[in-house]
Amino acid sequence: MADPLATLQQQHLQALERHYVETLAALGYDGVLIYSGRPALHFGDDQYASFCSYGHFQHWTGQAGLAHSWLLIRPGRRPVCYLHAPDDFWHLPAQLPDEAWTERLEVIPGRYDEAPPIAAGGRLAVVGDVSAATSAALGAELNPAALLTALDEGRVRKSDYEVACLGEANRMAGLGHRAAREAFLAGGSELDVHLAYLQASRQRESELPYGNIVGSGAHAAVLHYQHYDTQAPRERYSLLVDAGHRHRGYCADITRTWAGADAEPLFGDLVAGMHDIKQRLVEAVAPGVDFVELHERMHCLLGELLVASGLVTGSAETAVESGITRAFCPHGLGHLLGIQVHDVAGRRASDGTALPPPAQHPALRLTRELEAGMAVTIEPGLYVIPMLLEPLTSGPAGRHLNRASIERLAPHGGIRIEDNVVVTANSARNLTADIE
Amino acid sequence: MADPLATLQQQHLQALERHYVETLAALGYDGVLIYSGRPALHFGDDQYASFCSYGHFQHWTGQAGLAHSWLLIRPGRRPVCYLHAPDDFWHLPAQLPDEAWTERLEVIPGRYDEAPPIAAGGRLAVVGDVSAATSAALGAELNPAALLTALDEGRVRKSDYEVACLGEANRMAGLGHRAAREAFLAGGSELDVHLAYLQASRQRESELPYGNIVGSGAHAAVLHYQHYDTQAPRERYSLLVDAGHRHRGYCADITRTWAGADAEPLFGDLVAGMHDIKQRLVEAVAPGVDFVELHERMHCLLGELLVASGLVTGSAETAVESGITRAFCPHGLGHLLGIQVHDVAGRRASDGTALPPPAQHPALRLTRELEAGMAVTIEPGLYVIPMLLEPLTSGPAGRHLNRASIERLAPHGGIRIEDNVVVTANSARNLTADIE
Repeated sequence: MADPLATLQQQHLQALERHYVETLAALGYDGVLIYSGRPALHFGDDQYASFCSYGHFQHWTGQAGLAHSWLLIRPGRRPVCYLHAPDDFWHLPAQLPDEAWTERLEVIPGRYDEAPPIAAGGRLAVVGDVSAATSAALGAELNPAALLTALDEGRVRKSDYEVACLGEANRMAGLGHRAAREAFLAGGSELDVHLAYLQASRQRESELPYGNIVGSGAHAAVLHYQHYDTQAPRERYSLLVDAGHRHRGYCADITRTWAGADAEPLFGDLVAGMHDIKQRLVEAVAPGVDFVELHERMHCLLGELLVASGLVTGSAETAVESGITRAFCPHGLGHLLGIQVHDVAGRRASDGTALPPPAQHPALRLTRELEAGMAVTIEPGLYVIPMLLEPLTSGPAGRHLNRASIERLAPHGGIRIEDNVVVTANSARNLTADIE
Repeated sequence: MADPLATLQQQHLQALERHYVETLAALGYDGVLIYSGRPALHFGDDQYASFCSYGHFQHWTGQAGLAHSWLLIRPGRRPVCYLHAPDDFWHLPAQLPDEAWTERLEVIPGRYDEAPPIAAGGRLAVVGDVSAATSAALGAELNPAALLTALDEGRVRKSDYEVACLGEANRMAGLGHRAAREAFLAGGSELDVHLAYLQASRQRESELPYGNIVGSGAHAAVLHYQHYDTQAPRERYSLLVDAGHRHRGYCADITRTWAGADAEPLFGDLVAGMHDIKQRLVEAVAPGVDFVELHERMHCLLGELLVASGLVTGSAETAVESGITRAFCPHGLGHLLGIQVHDVAGRRASDGTALPPPAQHPALRLTRELEAGMAVTIEPGLYVIPMLLEPLTSGPAGRHLNRASIERLAPHGGIRIEDNVVVTANSARNLTADIE
């Protein structure tokens, strides 16, 4: 079967070559060697940790699991992929997919535990997880900051090919989320839900772009909850599932939250309210929008929902200004999405230097003005996190907190609804299908 | 519920303390600090690779996933566990199990991104994945070879507690293997079988002691086959599943191979023959047995099976001497098993120095004489690996190869049957239940 994305991938590679040629010329390099990386051994053991290829290697190949391989990009010459595929009866050799890059690049299979032999000449950079000794032996500059900044910036605005890959990753993740919901409603444990997600989205845990978050009840308030109970909880309050998929390197990152059989009506109302907030924020995505302002708009909408639901008294403005909404949602509205789930260059000044997050929003990973081609997550959240709410109760904001309602809500943990959105020329396109 | 292993764990810790006291005294140390380790970030990314605590940390605690934590062992003083459990709403803090070690050791929860403050005094060693700078700041010797050798040696003969843990890991893995067989016979793909295994053995992929090998058809001949097809093969020749479980740090490592609906009768006969060979080798395990000789006995039994099945003509002796059996089974008969699936100190001279494997058996990981308490795998294999068989066909051994039979067998890949066995005072005990 011909690859349906072949033409788009050709165009993607053409633009990528152009960007590399311009970047190398501007910075005075004659070539760059990109290393995919290698898995690390557990200390004192012969077993390997999980591995993910370097982002800039994936940008050309989409191969997330290809270790010990190298790309050589030199202006005016055909890019070369040194593909690590040694004769070895212990492992299956790397197999090339039926994709355009394998034709466009010159692929040289071999054994590349060490760097490939590069003909000397010119000023070479090497990027990736390379030792200083290897870099010196190549006569190359190792991970020069200006080059990395420029290559990162070249990943910020996605090509049509990349958007198609993000879309397919979303489609597969959507299948997983539907199955996860069914497994939860059928009485499954966190582990059962996780496995149902993998089964329906046709992937294994080690291929996921990030560890699935599957939090039942109060666990839903642990933002990066990393365990899975093997037993289902007695009370079925809620389930939060934050889980993705990777397609040719590109990540989906989707969250849904569902009320269980024992949920308070208040919780169901809040879930509906958060779907509505997510939708309004998605509709506000467009070129020229400042993401920090959109994040602040999330806090205004959260303030309104908290007041409307009776969790907070007073005005929505007070809830925002007094820090109440930040206690209910300590994470950012979203982040850039691409080859990495938290994609590169989300906080950067116009001259390319990295910027710290805003003082009031330390967890916000994206602070740029939106541009066509950027892919972002929109993920408003609302949680009962005692570590954050308790300090408020003794301060001036305390009188605005309806402690009885908050306590009733606490065993449900929290809510996050997250979609993946690509900025278009005039507005935005939601890549995440309608999932309940 | 009280821990059923509490008394055994107390005895295990008592013996462990004794071993450490003697070892430190013999080598002139006043204490040793053991670091559990920390997960590595993927290069250029904010996502972490999978993690496994250092073996010597698990030897005391059984905690395979506890990062940033430390143990301080000093003769005459209560062992201390510096447990990394920072206040953090992003992650669930480390929670202690209801086990004897949490009482016997002094547990000091805190934030240990850096080494804990150790009162100066005496000669200290630090072991684990620690930087030279951290070691120097502690005034400690980093991973001294003689100490590591002695600590490794202290893990070779398992306590009754450790045997009980290996047994429980085997029980859980057995549940997985039965479910894997059912999923295969029901028409599942390699991915489906992998997920059915996890579901029945109640674990996630990142908790496995090693990556599950799930190889259908010719994939069964790739010894460490690392991919899973998401589509079931059209022809159902065979399935090989090599998959384990970890209980309180201790690993099961079990392999089964099943004939599919499209298998040749020859293949079914060979599977039965390999079960028989496995059984005879398990029955030969006893103190005083030289494992290299047992490995060579596997080759004799393989030679007999190859001749009896008509794959090879001539005598079994010739099949062994000409290298034919080594081409059909290039891996070792087995290895030590414990906190690491390939446990430490399998190839070691009586003075503690590491030894290379025998020239004819380069993949053999265990070359010692068996002693009571050692846990080993017994895993005879028989594969059609063209890379190894083809060179034989053109040499003097070629006339003994029945190429027509070998070609008929090739799409089935191969067979491995693997049990976990602990050496007792007089013979051995098979920890692996009867799995078809």
